[in-house]
Amino acid sequence: MVKKLIVLGGVAAGMSAASKARRVNPDAEITVYTNEEHISYAGCGLPYFIGGTVKSEDKLIARTIEEFKESNIDVKLNSEAISLAPASKSIEIKDVVTGKTFKDNYDKLVIATGARALVPPFEGVEKMGIFKLRNVNDGVKIKQYLEEYRPSNIVIIGGGYIGLEMVEVFIEKGCRVTLIERAPHILPNMDDDMANILAAYLEERGVTIRVGESVEAFPGGESVEKVKTDKGEIPADFVLLSIGVTPNTEFTGGSGVELGPRNAILVDMEMKTSIEDIYAAGDCATAWHAISGKDVYIPLGTTANKQGKIAGENAVGGHAKFNGVLGTGIARVLEMEVSRSGLSERECRELGIEYEARVIKSRTAAHYCPVSGSMHLKLVVDKENKTLIGAQIVGFQGAASRIDMLAVAMTSKATVEELTDMDLAYSPPFSPVWDPVLVALNQF
Amino acid sequence: MVKKLIVLGGVAAGMSAASKARRVNPDAEITVYTNEEHISYAGCGLPYFIGGTVKSEDKLIARTIEEFKESNIDVKLNSEAISLAPASKSIEIKDVVTGKTFKDNYDKLVIATGARALVPPFEGVEKMGIFKLRNVNDGVKIKQYLEEYRPSNIVIIGGGYIGLEMVEVFIEKGCRVTLIERAPHILPNMDDDMANILAAYLEERGVTIRVGESVEAFPGGESVEKVKTDKGEIPADFVLLSIGVTPNTEFTGGSGVELGPRNAILVDMEMKTSIEDIYAAGDCATAWHAISGKDVYIPLGTTANKQGKIAGENAVGGHAKFNGVLGTGIARVLEMEVSRSGLSERECRELGIEYEARVIKSRTAAHYCPVSGSMHLKLVVDKENKTLIGAQIVGFQGAASRIDMLAVAMTSKATVEELTDMDLAYSPPFSPVWDPVLVALNQF
Repeated sequence: MVKKLIVLGGVAAGMSAASKARRVNPDAEITVYTNEEHISYAGCGLPYFIGGTVKSEDKLIARTIEEFKESNIDVKLNSEAISLAPASKSIEIKDVVTGKTFKDNYDKLVIATGARALVPPFEGVEKMGIFKLRNVNDGVKIKQYLEEYRPSNIVIIGGGYIGLEMVEVFIEKGCRVTLIERAPHILPNMDDDMANILAAYLEERGVTIRVGESVEAFPGGESVEKVKTDKGEIPADFVLLSIGVTPNTEFTGGSGVELGPRNAILVDMEMKTSIEDIYAAGDCATAWHAISGKDVYIPLGTTANKQGKIAGENAVGGHAKFNGVLGTGIARVLEMEVSRSGLSERECRELGIEYEARVIKSRTAAHYCPVSGSMHLKLVVDKENKTLIGAQIVGFQGAASRIDMLAVAMTSKATVEELTDMDLAYSPPFSPVWDPVLVALNQF
Repeated sequence: MVKKLIVLGGVAAGMSAASKARRVNPDAEITVYTNEEHISYAGCGLPYFIGGTVKSEDKLIARTIEEFKESNIDVKLNSEAISLAPASKSIEIKDVVTGKTFKDNYDKLVIATGARALVPPFEGVEKMGIFKLRNVNDGVKIKQYLEEYRPSNIVIIGGGYIGLEMVEVFIEKGCRVTLIERAPHILPNMDDDMANILAAYLEERGVTIRVGESVEAFPGGESVEKVKTDKGEIPADFVLLSIGVTPNTEFTGGSGVELGPRNAILVDMEMKTSIEDIYAAGDCATAWHAISGKDVYIPLGTTANKQGKIAGENAVGGHAKFNGVLGTGIARVLEMEVSRSGLSERECRELGIEYEARVIKSRTAAHYCPVSGSMHLKLVVDKENKTLIGAQIVGFQGAASRIDMLAVAMTSKATVEELTDMDLAYSPPFSPVWDPVLVALNQF
């Protein structure tokens, strides 16, 4: 019998774990410690909050502390785990407001401490006007700053999903926007041919894109004035650092909890760590990649929710299994949509997988419909067993969601032959008579 | 060696067959006979042409006669097949303009004569103002009639996809619209619980829906004035008959070509009929249902294109196989979308399949996004082997396209367990963090 479950972390994975554990086990004592002031918030909604689509930060909160209290889940804010002693099943917590520390004991522990934005020690990185965007407080601070200072020269560092969603926010505000990416192209988790379609569209929309360029410093006075890179200087009165995240796992040091890629906590398919009675889930943990079979670090909100649910169920006695990730991702930037799932060509090469890839250009709907826009679709197929192992989409309204069809196909390990000519839905506002997915499958 | 291929029919299946045969075999003589004046048109686009979205009927033509001529495909318009003699490999053709008949001989024959709108012999059905909508000429006639007479009391008979798409056209024109359906609910190929969500929405939008009601006659003078049913009379100055289609297969009588359900030509997976060297495809033919394993008659444009391509390839020596249909369908009516694939509950009962069904209500996107609308999703699962065998969706923007994910799952014979918690794409404008599909799968 589990008497006491402690959950570290109060966002997607942590609160999913606590909720699921409560549903499975009505009796266990469940305590959630989080070092933040907000819980259960939709981090992926932050760009829409800053852009004004979401009118108030409250709308991003899925469930409040009071609601969790009604389920008999005790949530302690501003409480950061600082060390872990599996031998005594104890955890040391620091109150981040008072600085006081105390210990608590668990029968079962779920670690869901998430990740934090990477902030490299660039010279001047502490200047006013330089932000990261990870939690609700970051969002509120950025929104206040924009309203107070109305910056016009925006530099976004990092061309992943968050950086791109913030490009949309600033272009819609009429700002001058420069996007800097250290990799050779934006959207580093897609292949260059696909990512460059979005880059060309953004340049048409007035965004300056600088790839293969590394930030070095932020010269200026108290406030940021420019961004210095290895290739020059860019005037800036607002800078967003969106170069990725790193898992909050330092407090496990010395505990024996094994870490995996990128220092995320290594978990098995039941979300168990290397130490008995300790589970981990979400952005602080690894995930099993359903195609490569490798343990990977791909922190995303959906995965956090699923892993959290499984960790919670198993921590109170279950044996649910997580089916793994495909690295499925999607984003909209102004009118253009991008999505990807499975392995890119680059990942195949890195993994030594023999593959075939094809790219087609088609339309999102019948050519005579006003909603019809162009779209590019890339499929990657395993040369040996002819299963679909990767897909990437760039295009206009309705394009990117097609990735889910391909994610289902990859989940089912379907071969190209099984999928060719399958019976997809057709009506002029939704697709051409030959859906782009069928057109692409017919290339193999 | 195939020297001469004759294709009967010049729309989706026929022109797909001719085109594919030409690509595979550059030398064969290919002649297409069609009894229509137009070829290669997008019949599914006709409601959008009448509504004005498609400005000219030319936009609905995928390829012209001249383009086919460049591929050395000879297309003869107004030429209707009236009899077939497999023993002498000859076909009798009537010129529908002059009334003259002649014979032609084939090495291989592809029958793609399509289907025509059902027009029961209701008293007064020939009156002015009563239309069917099947081909380009029907569309042009309706459009001219609407412009000339500006009818205001519209009665649409038949609540399938075409009837519903025409409801949209007339509601947008500000007309009073009554929809009459003989079955107990609109969308007879969906279950009543799902179809009635659309019915309620349409009633809110001002449409009068009368189900379980049978048309008997069209009283009035030269022009239609009302619709008389078994339950009363409805004033009408425009009537659309959209109660379904029947395959154009009468000319095969006595030829030995075996017919299947609804008098459609029975074909195997290679599109072969019961007679050597004769293939059939599209709305005049049956299709193999990939879940029930039965030969069914579900005439749809996508299937016609696929079957036509396969028939064309095989007629010149190939052995391509058609993977069967799921009866996947989709339609948009004003702001609401509907889709379905696989078996409905009613079909499962008729087939004696033990099933479980669940319906969930969710949202198309994150609740805080303006594009987020409600949607209902029903899944039907085989009780024995736990594979997904049916899905139905009703909801707002972005809802219905999710049917393709479920069509892929059914094509792959995936079990609920394999699909639960799969890695679908998430970003606020595209879905809630738990996509409705995952929510529904988690009900089993």
